[in-house]
Amino acid sequence: MSAPWRGFASDNYAGAHPEVLEAIVRANVGHAVAYGEDAETARLADLVRDHFGSQAEVFPVFNGTGANVVALSAICRPWEAVICSDTAHVNVDEGGAPEKVAGLKLWTTPTADGLLTPEAIDLHAVRFGDVHRAQQAVVTVTQSSELGTASSPEQLGALVDHVHGLGMKVHLDGARLANAAAGLDVDLRAITTDVGIDILSLGGTKNGALGAEAVVVLDPGLAHAVPFLRKSSMQLASKMRFVSAQLCALLTDDLWRRNASHANAMAQRLLEGVKQIPGVTIARRVDANAVFAYLPRDVTARLQQHYRFYEWDERTGEVRWMCSWDTTPEDVDGFVAAISREMGA
Amino acid sequence: MSAPWRGFASDNYAGAHPEVLEAIVRANVGHAVAYGEDAETARLADLVRDHFGSQAEVFPVFNGTGANVVALSAICRPWEAVICSDTAHVNVDEGGAPEKVAGLKLWTTPTADGLLTPEAIDLHAVRFGDVHRAQQAVVTVTQSSELGTASSPEQLGALVDHVHGLGMKVHLDGARLANAAAGLDVDLRAITTDVGIDILSLGGTKNGALGAEAVVVLDPGLAHAVPFLRKSSMQLASKMRFVSAQLCALLTDDLWRRNASHANAMAQRLLEGVKQIPGVTIARRVDANAVFAYLPRDVTARLQQHYRFYEWDERTGEVRWMCSWDTTPEDVDGFVAAISREMGA
Amino acid sequence: MSAPWRGFASDNYAGAHPEVLEAIVRANVGHAVAYGEDAETARLADLVRDHFGSQAEVFPVFNGTGANVVALSAICRPWEAVICSDTAHVNVDEGGAPEKVAGLKLWTTPTADGLLTPEAIDLHAVRFGDVHRAQQAVVTVTQSSELGTASSPEQLGALVDHVHGLGMKVHLDGARLANAAAGLDVDLRAITTDVGIDILSLGGTKNGALGAEAVVVLDPGLAHAVPFLRKSSMQLASKMRFVSAQLCALLTDDLWRRNASHANAMAQRLLEGVKQIPGVTIARRVDANAVFAYLPRDVTARLQQHYRFYEWDERTGEVRWMCSWDTTPEDVDGFVAAISREMGA
Amino acid sequence: MSAPWRGFASDNYAGAHPEVLEAIVRANVGHAVAYGEDAETARLADLVRDHFGSQAEVFPVFNGTGANVVALSAICRPWEAVICSDTAHVNVDEGGAPEKVAGLKLWTTPTADGLLTPEAIDLHAVRFGDVHRAQQAVVTVTQSSELGTASSPEQLGALVDHVHGLGMKVHLDGARLANAAAGLDVDLRAITTDVGIDILSLGGTKNGALGAEAVVVLDPGLAHAVPFLRKSSMQLASKMRFVSAQLCALLTDDLWRRNASHANAMAQRLLEGVKQIPGVTIARRVDANAVFAYLPRDVTARLQQHYRFYEWDERTGEVRWMCSWDTTPEDVDGFVAAISREMGA
Repeated sequence: MSAPWRGFASDNYAGAHPEVLEAIVRANVGHAVAYGEDAETARLADLVRDHFGSQAEVFPVFNGTGANVVALSAICRPWEAVICSDTAHVNVDEGGAPEKVAGLKLWTTPTADGLLTPEAIDLHAVRFGDVHRAQQAVVTVTQSSELGTASSPEQLGALVDHVHGLGMKVHLDGARLANAAAGLDVDLRAITTDVGIDILSLGGTKNGALGAEAVVVLDPGLAHAVPFLRKSSMQLASKMRFVSAQLCALLTDDLWRRNASHANAMAQRLLEGVKQIPGVTIARRVDANAVFAYLPRDVTARLQQHYRFYEWDERTGEVRWMCSWDTTPEDVDGFVAAISREMGA
Repeated sequence: MSAPWRGFASDNYAGAHPEVLEAIVRANVGHAVAYGEDAETARLADLVRDHFGSQAEVFPVFNGTGANVVALSAICRPWEAVICSDTAHVNVDEGGAPEKVAGLKLWTTPTADGLLTPEAIDLHAVRFGDVHRAQQAVVTVTQSSELGTASSPEQLGALVDHVHGLGMKVHLDGARLANAAAGLDVDLRAITTDVGIDILSLGGTKNGALGAEAVVVLDPGLAHAVPFLRKSSMQLASKMRFVSAQLCALLTDDLWRRNASHANAMAQRLLEGVKQIPGVTIARRVDANAVFAYLPRDVTARLQQHYRFYEWDERTGEVRWMCSWDTTPEDVDGFVAAISREMGA
Repeated sequence: MSAPWRGFASDNYAGAHPEVLEAIVRANVGHAVAYGEDAETARLADLVRDHFGSQAEVFPVFNGTGANVVALSAICRPWEAVICSDTAHVNVDEGGAPEKVAGLKLWTTPTADGLLTPEAIDLHAVRFGDVHRAQQAVVTVTQSSELGTASSPEQLGALVDHVHGLGMKVHLDGARLANAAAGLDVDLRAITTDVGIDILSLGGTKNGALGAEAVVVLDPGLAHAVPFLRKSSMQLASKMRFVSAQLCALLTDDLWRRNASHANAMAQRLLEGVKQIPGVTIARRVDANAVFAYLPRDVTARLQQHYRFYEWDERTGEVRWMCSWDTTPEDVDGFVAAISREMGA
Repeated sequence: MSAPWRGFASDNYAGAHPEVLEAIVRANVGHAVAYGEDAETARLADLVRDHFGSQAEVFPVFNGTGANVVALSAICRPWEAVICSDTAHVNVDEGGAPEKVAGLKLWTTPTADGLLTPEAIDLHAVRFGDVHRAQQAVVTVTQSSELGTASSPEQLGALVDHVHGLGMKVHLDGARLANAAAGLDVDLRAITTDVGIDILSLGGTKNGALGAEAVVVLDPGLAHAVPFLRKSSMQLASKMRFVSAQLCALLTDDLWRRNASHANAMAQRLLEGVKQIPGVTIARRVDANAVFAYLPRDVTARLQQHYRFYEWDERTGEVRWMCSWDTTPEDVDGFVAAISREMGA
């Protein structure tokens, strides 16, 4: 039995939303063809077309690293490479899987807030056709980013146009796509299909699933490779109906948005609360469900005895607080009070 | 909603056992640390030690291919290789993942019934130390095998001793370990720990889970590498409690054995039924939950209009019928009657 | 200083032909653009078009393993695989490089004499489109084979047609292409371009070079990938003029044929000699520069004190004797006398 | 025949030194065991021990990328990673081979002049033991660097101590080790063995060879893996005597130093010449055989019609001029005059 222990460490510390569990139970009837030829996966394909447009194709996978590596591999030939922010999950938190599983080279570039700019991309848009350089073929952007920020549809559209103009494709790491869309108050397609994204990783786990992500292909020319890459990258579920059912639940009755909006609202509540506390500095814009702040190191240490959260940068004392679909106002208020108490101590 | 459609194609067409679903629901309480530092995973570690011995360490993963590749990678240095049966799942049904994800070379050897023998292994136990040859470092055996057969503890023990004598390790692909143990009427450790297996892939999905497998390390010297390999092989679940809970359910109150014994019994019932039908030849020994038989091609074609199952070898007309934890006597009897009818037509 | 020690172990124990050395010396004038934009490489391109046809493109590399892996990678997408003989160099003597460097799965098939047949290929021409199976996309044949045999142009043409009919490409491992062509008394293109080979590894080292091989692309659709694969596979020479000059020498004034014919003639002389010796059994057809025979184990052991050669199969006592461009009639006659002496002992 | 065309593009545009060619001719006598069991390679082992100390072991390879990837792979387990300068050859000029061939992740860090500092390394010396981060296990330094700079033995020693203190190893990319040692006026071991380097890539090609590099292992614990990695990385020469002979020539009678000192002296001559030209700004310290300067873009364009050299940074107009073992004072003086002429135009 898991402990009823709560905190602000990560949105994957939360459990599954009841509607997701109910969908799994409903899917557990009789036999279903394995590996995706089942009714749940067919229904998911319809839902994804509803949300992302008629050309969208969906391929459920196990986790976000898997979605990213399969999607990037669908674009890159073996000598090609990926441009990303140096803070991107694919660079710093995937255990080197892109390099090890797919031989992908990452060209990293610093960003102020986790969001790539045309200028940052241009630093690596060089030496096309030069065999000595791993050839950049795709730019991966994260929405919302690891730093809790999101680009507007206009910003994202301009970036995609810039990348396409350079002859490259754009992948979107949407582990928290729902939080970005909810924060921007737009539909999922407004920051994907409508701005020209070619392929994306659609996150379900942090949005209230047990464990379900997907590669969504928007450029039809990339779809043929994905089934083979998913299998050979060890991301093909045999009883896929149970992965698809989770994603179906999130895409039904706007559960994705309800969960994300709630998490974002809790982050805003937390932001408002800590802003009032003397000595706490907010570190970054809060566009989604993460709040970054600078705390004195001893305060962080004392707080962590009661609340789990990460020190983001041990050099600066920056900390990260994540809210999730199940964070309560009471959780937030209690945490704000605790911070206030420790700051006053 | 999945259709209540039934057949004998694969044991992964079945759904999840109710006790597994209940375990997931029970685990869905409050927050839990991600990536394995949760109460369910701790409980799984205890259960695995109960079943496999005090030195056993368990690492949940997503699927069988993932378990196999992580386990084999824990043994092989980059220039080392794997000896396996040419019918092994790792060779013919993993989309080349061992080669692509881990650079593993497979030295394949023909087997009569999917079970390796010392003689078959000796064919590849050559040129140790020769840099021109990918150096065999591990033998992988499957229990029960892709052909529905199982080795006795004595046979397996002799094989392991032979391999260890050659300076190599032994991995067991236990995607259907439960079926083998149930068929042999022994405990799980009798065909793993007690015979000297070094590392194994423990299957849950075909045994009644939604999707849950694990690497179980029996040789403690191999454990340090597994967490890093699991992550970089994209097999690390963030909300791991939900994977672990499934495996806990199977290892509790002998659910693993109840499910496997039932599937095996259905296979025996099917065997007994088709044996009586003139013109049907049983192709192989039935040690677990699979029945292989030769059918006339036209009979197969007509049967497949009503029942899903695989033609195993299109050259010989051999077909495979798998039974699962939820196959009913009525399923079997109806199928036997249909075969009988088609054979008489 | 190398010892003037001679034997029948391998055709790569021989040194470089004087005309090759002279070509290197001639190329050593002034500066030349690195990585292939030099006059020698341009001249090589012309010579390769002369020998292989106007569409042929040549990419010099360092060694045979490099040529094979780059060529096969030019055909296979990451989830695709290679069909080969189980005795092929790419399978048994490349240290697992195809799997490790390029993630290539090899589907191996037994052959009587190292030469693939349509039937042997058909064993692996199955399950096209099935994601669970690494998708065979290319068949690699070896000419002359590791067992000293060669296919006729007619046999090879029929095989290529068969493979193309199955939707796959054909790679030819021509580490000893010169020996095959000389043995068959045909031009190089008669067993490559003219029979429909798509890409080949052209061997220079065993034909009298210091160290020079090349990928020769005959299907123009495969050429664009090779420069990038050659670089990322670490097979791009900076001072390429010195690799190209060696290949130019071999393709000038029929040096390739002079060297190969001589080596083949020495193998025939050896064959004729040992055939007369009671108790020695010739194991295989001698189409090129290798003789295989069965010797008593103790005779082999005594002979190896004076002559270096390999026991090919320790189970059967089969030995391999290779002749090279610099093997002399005296070498052969002395060796035959020694065998005769030891057999009589 | 190569054109007698000269320039300042790269030290690998030069040919081979006559003493190297003579060594190859001398090695071309009779038969020699392939793959390194030959007299030249044995002699090289002695020479390497003479120059690098009694524990040094040498493994000849084909090119610098091969040396780097084999050496780094000898340190890193599959989940481990490399810290390097973002201008390192291994990052920007090896076509992604470290990632593609060996799955190595590179943690890159900006440097002022291509030389890593303890502070730059510390940026990536974080999260040891965290499975989510590819675990840094080795730092690779380049001596002399891609920017023509070299660290003193003291600086290098302090850096190595710092890295060892963090539990990591140090690899030295010595494609231009000779130029560094000559520039610092020290022996080869003074900046390798004596400062604690664990493994290095020893460059021969740019130092006057046709094509010859080597992995030199100084930490004996790393040696066992190298033969297997060299083979499976496609860097094992069959007629190795001809690679070893080149390296022997360079390590005999101080040819390495004569060639490097000459190239360095020509760079100093060029530096002195262009320093006098109004409007030309020297960009970096000249420690070896490279001069970096800023030129007006139109001057660069006009000069490149007569002299081949690289624009290093198209954003700033920085150009690179490399001198080689065969650059003459007349080459330099003519080039300085041309620059002066174009600057005055």
